Amino acid sequence: MRKFTFLLLAVISSTTIFSQNEDSIQIKRISDEILSNGKAYENLRYLTKKIGPRLAGSQGMVKSEQWGLKMMQESGADMAWMQECKVPHWVRGGKDAANAAYIPSRSKVKKGPITATIKKELDIVALGNSVGTGNKPLTAEVLLVHSFDELERRKDEVKGKIVFYNYKFNPTYVNTFLSYRDAGQYRGQGPSRASKYGAKAVIVRSLSHAADNHPHTGATRYDSAYAKIPAVAIGLRDADWLSEQLQEGTIKVTLITNGHFLPDTIGHNIIGELKGTEFPDEIITVGGHLDSWDNCEGAHDDGAGCVQTIEILRAFKAIGYKPKRTIRFVLFANEENGLRGGNKYAEEAKAKNEKHLLAMESDAGGFTPRAIGFSGSDEQYAKVLSWKSLIAPYGCTEINKGGGGADIGPLNRALKTPTASLNPDTQRYFDIHHARSDVFEAVNKRELELGAVNMAAFIYLVDKYGL
Amino acid sequence: MRKFTFLLLAVISSTTIFSQNEDSIQIKRISDEILSNGKAYENLRYLTKKIGPRLAGSQGMVKSEQWGLKMMQESGADMAWMQECKVPHWVRGGKDAANAAYIPSRSKVKKGPITATIKKELDIVALGNSVGTGNKPLTAEVLLVHSFDELERRKDEVKGKIVFYNYKFNPTYVNTFLSYRDAGQYRGQGPSRASKYGAKAVIVRSLSHAADNHPHTGATRYDSAYAKIPAVAIGLRDADWLSEQLQEGTIKVTLITNGHFLPDTIGHNIIGELKGTEFPDEIITVGGHLDSWDNCEGAHDDGAGCVQTIEILRAFKAIGYKPKRTIRFVLFANEENGLRGGNKYAEEAKAKNEKHLLAMESDAGGFTPRAIGFSGSDEQYAKVLSWKSLIAPYGCTEINKGGGGADIGPLNRALKTPTASLNPDTQRYFDIHHARSDVFEAVNKRELELGAVNMAAFIYLVDKYGL
Repeated sequence: MRKFTFLLLAVISSTTIFSQNEDSIQIKRISDEILSNGKAYENLRYLTKKIGPRLAGSQGMVKSEQWGLKMMQESGADMAWMQECKVPHWVRGGKDAANAAYIPSRSKVKKGPITATIKKELDIVALGNSVGTGNKPLTAEVLLVHSFDELERRKDEVKGKIVFYNYKFNPTYVNTFLSYRDAGQYRGQGPSRASKYGAKAVIVRSLSHAADNHPHTGATRYDSAYAKIPAVAIGLRDADWLSEQLQEGTIKVTLITNGHFLPDTIGHNIIGELKGTEFPDEIITVGGHLDSWDNCEGAHDDGAGCVQTIEILRAFKAIGYKPKRTIRFVLFANEENGLRGGNKYAEEAKAKNEKHLLAMESDAGGFTPRAIGFSGSDEQYAKVLSWKSLIAPYGCTEINKGGGGADIGPLNRALKTPTASLNPDTQRYFDIHHARSDVFEAVNKRELELGAVNMAAFIYLVDKYGL
Repeated sequence: MRKFTFLLLAVISSTTIFSQNEDSIQIKRISDEILSNGKAYENLRYLTKKIGPRLAGSQGMVKSEQWGLKMMQESGADMAWMQECKVPHWVRGGKDAANAAYIPSRSKVKKGPITATIKKELDIVALGNSVGTGNKPLTAEVLLVHSFDELERRKDEVKGKIVFYNYKFNPTYVNTFLSYRDAGQYRGQGPSRASKYGAKAVIVRSLSHAADNHPHTGATRYDSAYAKIPAVAIGLRDADWLSEQLQEGTIKVTLITNGHFLPDTIGHNIIGELKGTEFPDEIITVGGHLDSWDNCEGAHDDGAGCVQTIEILRAFKAIGYKPKRTIRFVLFANEENGLRGGNKYAEEAKAKNEKHLLAMESDAGGFTPRAIGFSGSDEQYAKVLSWKSLIAPYGCTEINKGGGGADIGPLNRALKTPTASLNPDTQRYFDIHHARSDVFEAVNKRELELGAVNMAAFIYLVDKYGL
């Protein structure tokens, strides 16, 4: 009996070792293909430099969808199609502008009268989905607050003012997404919470700890209970300047913004598929989102996720990998200001009663990979955790609990599909996120490629072993 | 007895937990100080933009030494001094230039005669420590080889030629230092191995996988058995071009380089010290090297390591940390082309019979931290490994066997001092290493700061618990 047990253990263990070897060889093959012959970087150059910004409803959206479909076809999808969905169509409507006018204090003016008004142009950008100032400038005194608590304490001073939320992006979180979540509420709720007390507009400190002055946009969410008021983000250096001046006196700011919604229009998820050879009905989804904000090239957010998705398809075909399960490569529509693409994908999956095994997203920038985040049952987590040593050599040294992405959230909610995310290093993301500095030049070729390698390895293992 | 054992275990375990809590609080304090009030980034700006290149013997070296001493004093060292050493004084001696002249093949010329010679300027840089072309241009036919093996096979063709080593930086290694070690032999040994067979000069493909065309310098090492010949590195795009043209015909290249040695001169290690309160005779060294190549700002290599070293000192003082042991913060001289600073430091330590507990170096760029490398006994490694969970939250999720640095190598050889290194992410390093693109703008503030945080945490633990 002991001998038998020993034998059995030896068989199991040698099978495991054999599989692990086979897997590590296969993953190395994928990695070598991507690091030697990768097209992600040049594809990203095209998407950012030739197409550029691609907010839902824009011409850039239309061009990027055509490009995406062509990429899926050229990269070897068995089938590629466009999945239609209604998308919102917010437009900036012109150039955003802000000018501060202030009377300098005695300490700033060495000689002469101190009544002269000084003007300074501020580097601002209207928040996504925000209303404009109504074809005319809006001028009001600025009320500086550092938090919602302070807003509540000073609510009687708010009426008729422009509220300036100077809530600092917390530098002490090592994971910058924690700072983003923390400060993000001012961009999201700030306008309506100030409007509640009669504010005419808001200025929000950009959600960043960059050393430069670029303002960072992103969607705001109006509470329908209060009047919609114009809302802008301000660059960090100008935020510091404004805050400093406000210690010494009164400042009026004149804002011009022109944001408004046009009627909903038609957008598309772009889908490429490799049909499964053994379990064609089991679907694995991997993707990023094709839309970007209108003030940047959207290189990291989320051009990177798109070209990584296409690269995994290309690499699988290049090495002749035939998946057991069906793998869908998806470029989602309208993540930034509506999530209509992700919703549509989930709706159709549910309506067709599709079986979705896993959905994985890359939407945290094309930076060096560090971890894979995973949300599923404890048994499933234990299973993916057992693959850690296979993936770690390529950068994702951790497989963490908790993973997903905005675009695949609806699928998880609709069908309880387990979700995963590529978690790259977070230090540089909020320097450029939603700002004009999110450009191709901010992406490193190898970091981008390694992201694709780690995702491909994970997808390969899910495809081979199921969940 | 069982009860007693249980009690004892409980006491030990609660002590451990208490220490771990105390340590994690102290490390968080260090981290918050550096991430909130850090001066490393602005110090690096000064070093790179106001001082700039600082090769041993140059004016930049002298200025950077004065700056370094001032920084040590201002950052709160109990004592700061300059440790004198002789340094080599290699100078580029003028502008390096290379021009290719070739006769295009029929396939490149659609009409007319194909005898016209076409010239193209190549982006090259003379290798450090190399000899010049002797105040006159050197013109010779180019012999392309892809490896030393090919050189040996074709040794009869070498005489009178310029040997072009087009050995590619291997993209399939995930850790780019492996590619550097692999391809580095062509920069180091290439000139003498070609000179052995009568080559007049060599061109080496830059040790990089950058997408741009900047050439990357670095020291070469002549074998005294053969004539010293001029040696340059060529940018990757020009290397590809040259290689492509050579498939089709003959190319002559004209080189002008002017490198030569002036007499040795005086340089200095810059040392700041915090005196230990309990074990002042036990010394912990932490440092980077102050010199850089002459063709760049030396921001990552190794301005980053210098400002991180100064930052650890500043942060310890700012939070009022009084080390048990003596900590020396060292900016080493002449790492790039002589290692005289590191040698001097070790010599003096040995001569004075100093007790060195640990030496740690940051010389792999100011990128996001990933691991700490450690070289010491197995027991010592087990001890530092037990600190992993304390450091991991700040980026160094691994403590690997094997760590050190060029400057602290001599101390290890002289006194068997255990050595450690900060191992940041390696993906971007060889894009800019020893090239004109190693500038301040290539450094991210938070990545730089987090490097200092992880090093400080490690130094703090070694100081507290010994090794």
